[in-house]
Amino acid sequence: MDLTPSARAVTLLAQLRSFMDTHILPVEADLLARQRRLDDPWVELPEIAALKAKAQAAGLWNLFLPSVSGLSVLDYATLAEQMGWSHIAPEVFNCNAPDTGNMEVLERYGSEAQKARWLDPLLRGEIRSAFCMTEPEVASSDATNMRATARIEGDEVVLDGLKWWSTGVGHPRCKVLIFMGLTDPDAHRHSRHSMVLVPMDSPGVKVERMLTVFGDADPPYGHGQVRFTDVRLPLDALIAGPGRGFEIAQGRLGPGRIHHCMRCIGASERALSLLITRGQDRVAFGKPLINLGGNRDIVANARIDIEMARLLVLKAARLIDTVGVFGAMTEISAIKVVAPNLACRIIDQAMQIHGGAGLSEDLPLAAMYAGARILRLADGPDEVHRGLVARWELLKHGDTGRGSVSKA
Amino acid sequence: MDLTPSARAVTLLAQLRSFMDTHILPVEADLLARQRRLDDPWVELPEIAALKAKAQAAGLWNLFLPSVSGLSVLDYATLAEQMGWSHIAPEVFNCNAPDTGNMEVLERYGSEAQKARWLDPLLRGEIRSAFCMTEPEVASSDATNMRATARIEGDEVVLDGLKWWSTGVGHPRCKVLIFMGLTDPDAHRHSRHSMVLVPMDSPGVKVERMLTVFGDADPPYGHGQVRFTDVRLPLDALIAGPGRGFEIAQGRLGPGRIHHCMRCIGASERALSLLITRGQDRVAFGKPLINLGGNRDIVANARIDIEMARLLVLKAARLIDTVGVFGAMTEISAIKVVAPNLACRIIDQAMQIHGGAGLSEDLPLAAMYAGARILRLADGPDEVHRGLVARWELLKHGDTGRGSVSKA
Amino acid sequence: MDLTPSARAVTLLAQLRSFMDTHILPVEADLLARQRRLDDPWVELPEIAALKAKAQAAGLWNLFLPSVSGLSVLDYATLAEQMGWSHIAPEVFNCNAPDTGNMEVLERYGSEAQKARWLDPLLRGEIRSAFCMTEPEVASSDATNMRATARIEGDEVVLDGLKWWSTGVGHPRCKVLIFMGLTDPDAHRHSRHSMVLVPMDSPGVKVERMLTVFGDADPPYGHGQVRFTDVRLPLDALIAGPGRGFEIAQGRLGPGRIHHCMRCIGASERALSLLITRGQDRVAFGKPLINLGGNRDIVANARIDIEMARLLVLKAARLIDTVGVFGAMTEISAIKVVAPNLACRIIDQAMQIHGGAGLSEDLPLAAMYAGARILRLADGPDEVHRGLVARWELLKHGDTGRGSVSKA
Amino acid sequence: MDLTPSARAVTLLAQLRSFMDTHILPVEADLLARQRRLDDPWVELPEIAALKAKAQAAGLWNLFLPSVSGLSVLDYATLAEQMGWSHIAPEVFNCNAPDTGNMEVLERYGSEAQKARWLDPLLRGEIRSAFCMTEPEVASSDATNMRATARIEGDEVVLDGLKWWSTGVGHPRCKVLIFMGLTDPDAHRHSRHSMVLVPMDSPGVKVERMLTVFGDADPPYGHGQVRFTDVRLPLDALIAGPGRGFEIAQGRLGPGRIHHCMRCIGASERALSLLITRGQDRVAFGKPLINLGGNRDIVANARIDIEMARLLVLKAARLIDTVGVFGAMTEISAIKVVAPNLACRIIDQAMQIHGGAGLSEDLPLAAMYAGARILRLADGPDEVHRGLVARWELLKHGDTGRGSVSKA
Repeated sequence: MDLTPSARAVTLLAQLRSFMDTHILPVEADLLARQRRLDDPWVELPEIAALKAKAQAAGLWNLFLPSVSGLSVLDYATLAEQMGWSHIAPEVFNCNAPDTGNMEVLERYGSEAQKARWLDPLLRGEIRSAFCMTEPEVASSDATNMRATARIEGDEVVLDGLKWWSTGVGHPRCKVLIFMGLTDPDAHRHSRHSMVLVPMDSPGVKVERMLTVFGDADPPYGHGQVRFTDVRLPLDALIAGPGRGFEIAQGRLGPGRIHHCMRCIGASERALSLLITRGQDRVAFGKPLINLGGNRDIVANARIDIEMARLLVLKAARLIDTVGVFGAMTEISAIKVVAPNLACRIIDQAMQIHGGAGLSEDLPLAAMYAGARILRLADGPDEVHRGLVARWELLKHGDTGRGSVSKA
Repeated sequence: MDLTPSARAVTLLAQLRSFMDTHILPVEADLLARQRRLDDPWVELPEIAALKAKAQAAGLWNLFLPSVSGLSVLDYATLAEQMGWSHIAPEVFNCNAPDTGNMEVLERYGSEAQKARWLDPLLRGEIRSAFCMTEPEVASSDATNMRATARIEGDEVVLDGLKWWSTGVGHPRCKVLIFMGLTDPDAHRHSRHSMVLVPMDSPGVKVERMLTVFGDADPPYGHGQVRFTDVRLPLDALIAGPGRGFEIAQGRLGPGRIHHCMRCIGASERALSLLITRGQDRVAFGKPLINLGGNRDIVANARIDIEMARLLVLKAARLIDTVGVFGAMTEISAIKVVAPNLACRIIDQAMQIHGGAGLSEDLPLAAMYAGARILRLADGPDEVHRGLVARWELLKHGDTGRGSVSKA
Repeated sequence: MDLTPSARAVTLLAQLRSFMDTHILPVEADLLARQRRLDDPWVELPEIAALKAKAQAAGLWNLFLPSVSGLSVLDYATLAEQMGWSHIAPEVFNCNAPDTGNMEVLERYGSEAQKARWLDPLLRGEIRSAFCMTEPEVASSDATNMRATARIEGDEVVLDGLKWWSTGVGHPRCKVLIFMGLTDPDAHRHSRHSMVLVPMDSPGVKVERMLTVFGDADPPYGHGQVRFTDVRLPLDALIAGPGRGFEIAQGRLGPGRIHHCMRCIGASERALSLLITRGQDRVAFGKPLINLGGNRDIVANARIDIEMARLLVLKAARLIDTVGVFGAMTEISAIKVVAPNLACRIIDQAMQIHGGAGLSEDLPLAAMYAGARILRLADGPDEVHRGLVARWELLKHGDTGRGSVSKA
Repeated sequence: MDLTPSARAVTLLAQLRSFMDTHILPVEADLLARQRRLDDPWVELPEIAALKAKAQAAGLWNLFLPSVSGLSVLDYATLAEQMGWSHIAPEVFNCNAPDTGNMEVLERYGSEAQKARWLDPLLRGEIRSAFCMTEPEVASSDATNMRATARIEGDEVVLDGLKWWSTGVGHPRCKVLIFMGLTDPDAHRHSRHSMVLVPMDSPGVKVERMLTVFGDADPPYGHGQVRFTDVRLPLDALIAGPGRGFEIAQGRLGPGRIHHCMRCIGASERALSLLITRGQDRVAFGKPLINLGGNRDIVANARIDIEMARLLVLKAARLIDTVGVFGAMTEISAIKVVAPNLACRIIDQAMQIHGGAGLSEDLPLAAMYAGARILRLADGPDEVHRGLVARWELLKHGDTGRGSVSKA
């Protein structure tokens, strides 16, 4: 398996790193602190808008979307890792979740009218979007539990239900939601649900509250709880027609998980870098911290585990490129377990070596931890993905009696 | 070793559990949510004040202080575990850090005048206090790094320096700080520092900001950063005279660590209880979550590890009762490593089984995690305590050639 | 809970340690090496016989049996820990498995004739015994899988089946087996099986082979595979009558697991002691090994975990003393998971610091590892015991809604 | 980075798997059992010799040596994984350590006369060899500790010292040793040692004993302790001249570590395969074991970790191919930590699910465990390799302030 990114990706990676080193990393802490101190933090700082314009002008824009950027999933994975160094970078480069997944859905399944109305302004970075799938009342890890409905009534689709962890719904420019709901309970279990495009200002749509993760609502992005009450939309709000929700969801999640996992790798690298810097600079008991106790082992294990995790994510990305999302399911589930857990662990170790500062807002680590921690649940909890890997392994084993063979 | 609490402690434990089941646990979530939603959250809710009055009337008050309560350290440990089930219980029972440690210091080392001025209102729960020791610029795990000064100038002691993680300084009734600073850099390394009682309204004392842990400032308690600029106090503000800071700090930390660790045990029990309830109530893939994957192993390991950790904390408590803090140093360091890590792990597992809710403010878990996580740093990071346990083990080994013998 | 051993146990512990330091530990390595080099190693070395005589003369004999020694289970636990330092000590003190469990069974359930024939010579150390329960063809972790039969035919009980892991069956003085087999498949599932006393020389009893653990058959004790073919014995060979096998087995296992677990604690202590000695004595890169990398953390974690595990085993022992085996089931299962795993881990770490020597016969570590490793399976694998702890926890939780309360 | 093996390697892999499935795996258990039961097990079974002839005839011979096989290190790595499924396969294909490393040394550094005398018969599989480096008296993890000497006296090199863990020295066809000793203590620390070719029958060479690993001497290969007493050889016994020992050793270890690690991957795959088969076939409590407790998580984690480890070993192999051993040092140290630990863990889990059988000679697991366990020490213990990874990481960090960048 060839994990080499294209020459163009290598060039873009250098440009991206340079942009981040010059324009993002030096100001990030200040921007985040200012956002937090606003009376109403649910606004976009003008500096962010300016950075977005600069990124767009530099051609570092919409790189996640193969049809636009011409990059493979593997190519973009290497860029996503770099963006993972910063909490604000994905937004600056118009590569932020859930917009990325939503744009992919529109690009692949949207009608021309849907594309013109929603995809184009999303690609221009003018609006943002959210994705409304999980529900508070049921175990969303088992999607068949879903209770929200998208019933067809004549020439309307009618939405009812309560969604939460709708990422991005707090943003002032969030203009459209993708809602997933039950359309036909009697259909085959993978044909019961539909996806619907819902303008944010539709009657009956109410953001009841913004949720916190470790007490932090992460403005201006955030995760919202959204009530849908008799929301009536024309049938052309359905994406690809009724009953295709699962099919779309499955395809949506493959590249998105690559993005999340590569950003986790980037976050792990940044945490390791902070860990080492602190360990070399700060002295206790007459030695740099890095030379005390088991700290060098922590560095070594982090380096080793990052290398392995990155290779596996790149392999999953390459498989999507070569055999498609469904041929990469084992690897996608595998990285979904590995990368967020790895990031949590290394970020935690970096917090520890920083002492109290590591937990405070003086460093990006606590926010990074919250971001990585939620990824152990979002897009399927660890437990579900481990279960999938095990299931595929047992099936495979049943066939050959020899266990698996390397595809590398 | 007899780990049996006294009959009186057993009775108090039953009363305490009843009080908590009746008055605290049912309202806690609502009180915390209301506190968070206040425009200025740095106030004490009247309901808390009412609960304190009720606890005092019930005789569940100042139980932590042997000279007041007549309880042994072991006795109180069993009560501290129960208080650890709730974020607000320690305050309700006037057993909250850092007031507890500060009252112990005053009770043991304070002059009569100091006791009258500060200890009495603290014991009555009228005022609160803070403890100013760690500093942002140096690795406070090595106390000899401390830079803040408490210089003697004539009949004054003059304080200068920057302290942070001053727990409790945000509380509206916080009236006094205990400040630790360098008095005589030429003295023996354990006789250089002094502790000073500083009225909160002294000229030159400035709370520069409240720090966050995972983005949460934990009002109305909180951890503050406090600047001391030419703060001048009469010499009778010194506790036990100049140069005795280390001695006082050492004695202060023993029982306090028992309290912290037993609260961690209580938090672990509550997290396990929440984990099981959720695991039994919520269904996915046709089964209660608790019967999926490795969840029952998580329950078993949690139960086993809690049992072991509790026994070790009780042993450390009993050793303080029988041979004093200095005879219990290995065990105190051991539990300081074990209990917060255990709590972090079980709370994290409980968060995971709750899905997104586990990370949100709908459940106490995220706040509990923050509380347990900071204890892996406060009062000495894991690394320092492991280093101490190893050092004592190597010393002991040098003597006998047979390793250690059970004291149980 | 009072974990203090009796004054007599404290005295015996001192005598036992002195005996071991003087007579056993200095010669153990040589004896084991000589045993291994014999053409036929399935003999008892005369030195072992001499040590047994000496131990008996010193009153350090049959200490495991309360009715003989007058010691509580807790008392004996402290002695078992010391015996766990040495592979040969349990035999020297006539406290070796499975003789101990078999003697307990005879003492509690045996008829006077059975006691006279088998218990008395076992107590005198003249003969040894084995216990035949697990079978190669089925998962013995689920005892209802058992296939061997003990059918009643007229005035005979007839045994058929294949047993393995019959510990001690290789010893030249092994004269009697306790066989467990199915008597009445239609009875209640806990009344189907019987235990039968089988003279080793009964027609139809054949030791097919001695099994190895990590390639080592552990002569002269060992674990045998025993074929029973139409073995006919008079009905008075049944212990306590037909159908009581499960009842006897349950009672047999409680104290035996305490013994095993305390020996694991002792083995862990010895491994830690060897680890430290090597770490202090051997130099690499200019420092004693103990000061390199994370080795001091290994020491600290070992000390902490040994302390906790010991306390839990002692608590389980005390519960057997005070409320009986059935009141101590959670704790017995808990320690059965904890102690062998702990011993495996610390022994492995001690092997690692010794380099190649640690794996070789020059040190007792590899044999200790094999002994601890098999205890993760014997008397119920980790998985079964974790399952039991979880089941009891869930049941308990169902009752109170508050999770568990400390019994300490 | 392209991890794709060559077309020829893919073809060879298929042939190798077919050969192993047909000729090796079905007979392996029987051959190993027969070897063990021999009165003198230090002989080569005729069946092994026949398998070697068959492998040679099939062109599956000396595949490890690029100059002979035309394969890259990466290519061979994929074959080494398959060989790792079987304890006897490496010997059958003439790819067994330490012969492989010794042949590499001779091929790269040997004189024509040395090649004719030793390399040619080794390549033909007529003789075997051993490598004598580590010493019992010193921490060999720090090679500067080495005490054995290879002094130049006139036209002779004179060897003295005690070596152990000389792998392969027990084999009846072992005819030559490579000895490493101190020649010039005053030279630069990397130029003090020499490597010398020592005919096994040289006067003064004495194999004092064969060492055991977990009680097993692993005949007919084994690890010996070899005494060198005034062994006098002509100067042309030196490899590449005096003082070049370190240089040769470094180059020797790179590919050898790839081989070891890929065999560990193969062993892990086999263990996982055995684990799954047993888990599916054996029933307890009414279910296949694989569906009990956390067993499916064990399968998932094993699959995930094997995938990651394999990718990292392949990356290290490709780096050797593209930038040489010295450009791959971090990765080589990384895999040397990862692969043996992974194999130990998965083999241990496979043993556990097999119950007692898993520890016995009925299954290959115990022997596989011993083989993997010793690799945590051989060619540098985990601790040294972690230390190297950390050192390189800290150095790298010092340069860029950004931590590392993916090379994938």
